[in-house]
Amino acid sequence: MLVREMSQQECESLLARVGRGRLACVRNNQPYIVPIYFAFEPGRLYGFATMGQKIEWLRLNPLVCVEADEVLSHTEWQSVVVLGRYEEFRDVPEHLEERLQVQARLEQVNHLWWDTGFAAAQARGRFDRDITLFYCIHIQEITGRRASSDPVEQR
Amino acid sequence: MLVREMSQQECESLLARVGRGRLACVRNNQPYIVPIYFAFEPGRLYGFATMGQKIEWLRLNPLVCVEADEVLSHTEWQSVVVLGRYEEFRDVPEHLEERLQVQARLEQVNHLWWDTGFAAAQARGRFDRDITLFYCIHIQEITGRRASSDPVEQR
Repeated sequence: MLVREMSQQECESLLARVGRGRLACVRNNQPYIVPIYFAFEPGRLYGFATMGQKIEWLRLNPLVCVEADEVLSHTEWQSVVVLGRYEEFRDVPEHLEERLQVQARLEQVNHLWWDTGFAAAQARGRFDRDITLFYCIHIQEITGRRASSDPVEQR
Repeated sequence: MLVREMSQQECESLLARVGRGRLACVRNNQPYIVPIYFAFEPGRLYGFATMGQKIEWLRLNPLVCVEADEVLSHTEWQSVVVLGRYEEFRDVPEHLEERLQVQARLEQVNHLWWDTGFAAAQARGRFDRDITLFYCIHIQEITGRRASSDPVEQR
């Protein structure tokens, strides 16, 4: 197996294609990972959430990491890591324009974009459709690695 | 889609079954996620690494989060999150016993347990077979969520 660094374009292409990954946030030096759906556009990831631990932590510390991957086998995979900063668009008139923009992008990627957030909120007994959040992750750095068992694939 | 909390037993069963996930570590409030292979046993995850950013960060702050999941579709998935503490078994005589124990467990789960660590080290130009680390994550908390589109599955 060979592992090589992915180019910026390869990383962005994976983020645009998969639309699904994991977000890590931090409180008191303790990291916490949650699966997320997102829509990529250059420089940004857009997402949707309902209130929960993730949002509480992100309000205290907006530094995040998002990982997304495609795994075909033990020796054939790609993994992209984004470092970024969380910004929230709450359901208030000042954020209406951003919310509509994010919602439109999420719709393009996944017509069930709202489903997981609502179902997770119901599971933790904090379901309230009024407390819905759209957010943006401003990308500060993208890196990626690609493994292949075939040296030709590495070119 | 319904989402429910998984039992401790279901979470442990997933960790034992998949043997693959993502580890988040933290430096200066900035989280960082890397894919890992691991072997589960009650109370612990075992892993192998070569020197790199992950290890440098973990030596400064041993608090970690590991996420592992099985995704069949948008509405059929399980995701388990472990909070824990990193302990390193370096290649010194005092740690020989622990290293052999961890290596034996990793072998049982994945006979290519060493492959990804070496290939990643080569990719970043820091390949040195002498600097190999076995580590243990002492599990402090496990939680999991399971989504299903079929209410019968939720029982």
